[in-house]
Amino acid sequence: MKNIIKLNSGFICYGNAVGVKESEGPLGEYFDMHDTDDRFGKDTWEKAESEMQRLAFNVALNKGQLKFEDIGAIFAGDLLNQCVGSSYGLLGCNIPYFGIYGACSTSAEGIILASVFTSKDIFKKCAVVTSSHNCSAERQYRTPIEYGGQRTPTSQWTVTGSGAFIIGDSEHGNVRITEAVPGRVIDKGVNDPNNMGAAMAPAVADTLVRYFTESGKKPSDFDLILTGDLGYEGSSILHELMSAEGFPDIENHNDCGILIYNREKQDTHAGGSGCGCAATVLSAYILPHMEKGVYKDVLFIATGAMMSPDSVKQGNSIPSIAHLLHFSVNKEC
Amino acid sequence: MKNIIKLNSGFICYGNAVGVKESEGPLGEYFDMHDTDDRFGKDTWEKAESEMQRLAFNVALNKGQLKFEDIGAIFAGDLLNQCVGSSYGLLGCNIPYFGIYGACSTSAEGIILASVFTSKDIFKKCAVVTSSHNCSAERQYRTPIEYGGQRTPTSQWTVTGSGAFIIGDSEHGNVRITEAVPGRVIDKGVNDPNNMGAAMAPAVADTLVRYFTESGKKPSDFDLILTGDLGYEGSSILHELMSAEGFPDIENHNDCGILIYNREKQDTHAGGSGCGCAATVLSAYILPHMEKGVYKDVLFIATGAMMSPDSVKQGNSIPSIAHLLHFSVNKEC
Repeated sequence: MKNIIKLNSGFICYGNAVGVKESEGPLGEYFDMHDTDDRFGKDTWEKAESEMQRLAFNVALNKGQLKFEDIGAIFAGDLLNQCVGSSYGLLGCNIPYFGIYGACSTSAEGIILASVFTSKDIFKKCAVVTSSHNCSAERQYRTPIEYGGQRTPTSQWTVTGSGAFIIGDSEHGNVRITEAVPGRVIDKGVNDPNNMGAAMAPAVADTLVRYFTESGKKPSDFDLILTGDLGYEGSSILHELMSAEGFPDIENHNDCGILIYNREKQDTHAGGSGCGCAATVLSAYILPHMEKGVYKDVLFIATGAMMSPDSVKQGNSIPSIAHLLHFSVNKEC
Repeated sequence: MKNIIKLNSGFICYGNAVGVKESEGPLGEYFDMHDTDDRFGKDTWEKAESEMQRLAFNVALNKGQLKFEDIGAIFAGDLLNQCVGSSYGLLGCNIPYFGIYGACSTSAEGIILASVFTSKDIFKKCAVVTSSHNCSAERQYRTPIEYGGQRTPTSQWTVTGSGAFIIGDSEHGNVRITEAVPGRVIDKGVNDPNNMGAAMAPAVADTLVRYFTESGKKPSDFDLILTGDLGYEGSSILHELMSAEGFPDIENHNDCGILIYNREKQDTHAGGSGCGCAATVLSAYILPHMEKGVYKDVLFIATGAMMSPDSVKQGNSIPSIAHLLHFSVNKEC
C-alpha cells in the first residue's frame, strides 16, 4: 500500500491568537494577537480556548479578505474532552464542520484533509482550526494550576494558542502543499504521561522513514524538517531512532515545541506541546518565512500522544501518531 | 457555496459487535457477534469498548477476505475522552489513521471522509470504525451505573456496540455511496443533556432542507430516511420542524435509536444513542437489506450532540450536528 498522498493545494492565508507566555517567548513578535491575561474575556478557561479559536479563524479570514460563505468545510479539533474547544468556538460560522482528533497532531491531520478536499475539487477553499490552552489542559490532564504541582524535567508545557489556516485549490497560495503521509498509531510501551516526547518520537521515525523510503528523498533535500511537538527530550530520541534507521544526519531538524519557548527563562522544561503549538508556530513563523523565501522546501510532521487521563490510570501505555506534510514555495513573492 | 458532495464509492463489506441488551432487542438476530456480559474479556469498560472496535473491524475484514495491508487509511472515533476507544482499539493494525469526533454522528462523518478518499483515488479502500459502550459512557457523562441514577423520560440509552465499514472506489460494492452533505454546528439553545433528541433535531432539519433544496428531490423519492439517533423525542420534533420548513410528509422516516431497542420491554426510554448506534444499525440491518433489494434509495443522517459534561456544567447549551449520506443500489444481487 502506498504511503504518500500527492496533493495540489496551497495556503491562502492563516492567523493565530496566543497567550501571554507565548507572546513573551522567542516568537512573540510574530503572533497575530494575544490577550493580557489568557482569559480572552471569558469566565472559564474552556470558554477562553473556544474564544481563541474564534479569534484565530477571524484573523485568518480577514487577512484573505474572505467571509464564512467562502469556506466549503472546516476541519477542527482540540484537546478538550469531546473537542468542545472547537464545537463551541466555531458555532455560528454556519460552515460544514468535520470534527477531528489527533491530540497535538490535529493541525497536520486537518491540513491533510483540507488539502485532499481542495486538491480534489470537493471545495475551492477549506479551513483548519486547532487550539490548546494551558489552564484547561492542565486541569483536565493533570491538576488545576492552583494546585501548583511539581513538573518533571521531561514534561512539556501546553501552549495557550490557536492557529487557523485557509487552504485553497491549485490556483491558490504561494506556499504549496504537495505531499502528505498520514501517520499510523504507534505504541512502543512508554507509559509516562510526563514524557510525551519519548512516546511520540517513534511515531515520527515511522512516518519519516516511510516517506524517505517511498519518495527516494533524503533529509538534506529539505531546508527544514519541523516536528511538532517532540520538545527537547523527544527530539533527542528522534535523532537516535533515525540514526538507527540509516538516517544519521538530520541537522536541518527543528521542533515547534523547542522554538516557541525560551527554555532557560520561561521554566517550560522539555518544551511546548498541545494542538495550539504546531498550529501557532506554523502560522506565525514558518509559513511567513516560506513566503519570504527563507525556507523553500519544508517537511512538517505534527505529533500526537493519544492517551487520556483514564487510559493512563488503567495502566495503558501511550499510543502516538505523526502526520507528515511537504510544503514548497513555487513562486517568488 | 454548494452543499452536496458528489461521490462514487461503495460498501465492500461491514461488520459489528454489540452488547447483551442490543442482542436481545428487535435487531438481535442481525448483529454479527455479541458478548455474554459486555466485558469482552477485559477488566475495564473502556478496554471492552476498544476490544469491540477490534472485533468489529476484524469481522468486516474477514467478510471481504481482506487484510490490514489492503486498507489505505482508517477513519475512527468514539465518545470517550480523547477518543481512546479508537486509538487503543485499532493499535497494531499499522494502517494510516485519521481520528475523528462527531459524537453520535461519527460514523457518517467517517463514511463521508472515506468516500471522498476512495471516490477521488487517494486510496482504493478505506475503513471506518466507531463505537460506544453504555458503561463507559454512563460513568463519563453521568454517573457510574452502580449508582443507579434515575433517568428522565427523554433520556436515551447509549448503545454498547461497534460498527466497521470497508469502503471502496468506483469498482466496489453493491450499495453505492453517491452523495453527501456535511453537517453544520447548530445550537438552538437546548441545554438539557437528558434530552439530546431535542438538541439534535434542528441539526437534522438544517441538513435535510439544504439537501432537498439543492438536489430538487423530495422525501418521497427515498425508500427510507434514516436518522441516527434522534430517538422518539427527537424524531417527533424533527417531523414538526420539517413540516414548518414545507416538508409535512416524511412518513418514510425511521431512526436508528428507535429501531435498536424495544421501548416497552427494554426500559430504554427515548431510544438508543452513541457512536455505536447508527454504526451497528446501518451495518447489521440497513445495508444487508439494501443488498437484498428491500431498500434501493436511502438517506442516512447520523446526528451528534457535541457537548461535554464540563460544558454543560458551565451553562452552555448543546451544539449539534447531522451529516447526510445518500446510498443507492445500482446492481441486483
